[in-house]
Amino acid sequence: MEVITVPGVGEVAEGDPLGELLALAASRAGIGLAGEDIVVVSHKVVSKREGRSRRLTAVQPGARAEELARELGKDARLVELILGESRSLIRARGGVLIVETRQGWICANAGIDSSNVPEDDTVVLLPEDADASARQLRAELGGPDGPPAVVIADSFGRPWRVGQTDVAIGCAGLAPLDDWIGRPDASGRPLEATVVAVADEVAAAADLVRDKDAGEPAAIVRGLGRYVTHDDGPGAGPLRRAESEDLFR
Amino acid sequence: MEVITVPGVGEVAEGDPLGELLALAASRAGIGLAGEDIVVVSHKVVSKREGRSRRLTAVQPGARAEELARELGKDARLVELILGESRSLIRARGGVLIVETRQGWICANAGIDSSNVPEDDTVVLLPEDADASARQLRAELGGPDGPPAVVIADSFGRPWRVGQTDVAIGCAGLAPLDDWIGRPDASGRPLEATVVAVADEVAAAADLVRDKDAGEPAAIVRGLGRYVTHDDGPGAGPLRRAESEDLFR
Repeated sequence: MEVITVPGVGEVAEGDPLGELLALAASRAGIGLAGEDIVVVSHKVVSKREGRSRRLTAVQPGARAEELARELGKDARLVELILGESRSLIRARGGVLIVETRQGWICANAGIDSSNVPEDDTVVLLPEDADASARQLRAELGGPDGPPAVVIADSFGRPWRVGQTDVAIGCAGLAPLDDWIGRPDASGRPLEATVVAVADEVAAAADLVRDKDAGEPAAIVRGLGRYVTHDDGPGAGPLRRAESEDLFR
Repeated sequence: MEVITVPGVGEVAEGDPLGELLALAASRAGIGLAGEDIVVVSHKVVSKREGRSRRLTAVQPGARAEELARELGKDARLVELILGESRSLIRARGGVLIVETRQGWICANAGIDSSNVPEDDTVVLLPEDADASARQLRAELGGPDGPPAVVIADSFGRPWRVGQTDVAIGCAGLAPLDDWIGRPDASGRPLEATVVAVADEVAAAADLVRDKDAGEPAAIVRGLGRYVTHDDGPGAGPLRRAESEDLFR
């Protein structure tokens, strides 16, 4: 497996043809996109092209946001945006606000982020529907031997482990899970509980080659053709654990 | 970044010279180990060489294990082993037993695993001290331009996401975290909460090239020399979130 940074994509603005920009940057770097490649893109450029940036100065926090912001020591306008993007609060304590987003992801601050945004008071929300974003980007990327798979990634914290890892919040053309349950292991014994979160591991691998300050929003993961599908497939939805099977909300 | 499977390591037994076996397998596959490489090894072969296999038929479950096993529908002998490896129970519900291990990791079944073990009634515990195991393996691997870094990986589930990803339970010669807090982003603004869990992302990347049924316990991650250190370093300890900073136990 090879993981290759795509340099020189540059700043992305609302309405930009992101697929074209990525293909051009890859081609200028001498990277020919192949149909079995996986293009991993930071959600931030996707959100920016989709107009999901918000100026904090334009936000009028409501009473609930004001109260929560006071408790947590956060900017009330940011909390207002977080609440607007959330289905439910999971934890609000010690300056940390963990929510279930409208898309069903559980993460800090509803994934709203202020890093790598040129304007000082601007933050970026998650894409409305990152699977749809991935499908669109995949179609735009095209390619002579079929389009590559697309993963849209974000950095999520973990409850019991320090640091963030990138995970998939959307994908197209990729089997998000590799289910080994019931298949034999190297000893011929059926595996009991092995489901590999392929899309999340692909996002994590791509994160390792993208410097946080280099403005490199994309990387290509090559050599995992066995997970790349002809159809767009189910997206990242199968990675969401149903509340009924969740012991930690 | 390149991620390369090390084929042909074969079955590992207690006391085996694992470093030698890995170096030999790599060399036979034409892979020359370099000092900036990261060798990622499944904990299972490390545990086996360290005599951490247990036969269930030799386990006499106590009263607490019997009771918990009944509640959860699990094998009481397995529960006895899990309790012996645990510092505290985090959740015991719906057939799932999430514990804090004696090493401080929070995971299902204390990381005890019965897949890829040739004997039918044998299970494998986590290494006693996987950082020490990683240091030992690193010293054994040696190498003309210094030893590679070593990561010992296990597959952990996640509370809100389906499927497992590999994480680091031990490492040597690797900076486990890359802390960007306060460093400028691409816009020159200081990053607020960005700490990349490098060792976990390295483990995840390696997992993508190792088939669960191929008996391939190791992979080499190449191209991340900036995270490889001369000294053995702090190990995987910095990845453990302190209970005081944890909202989910």
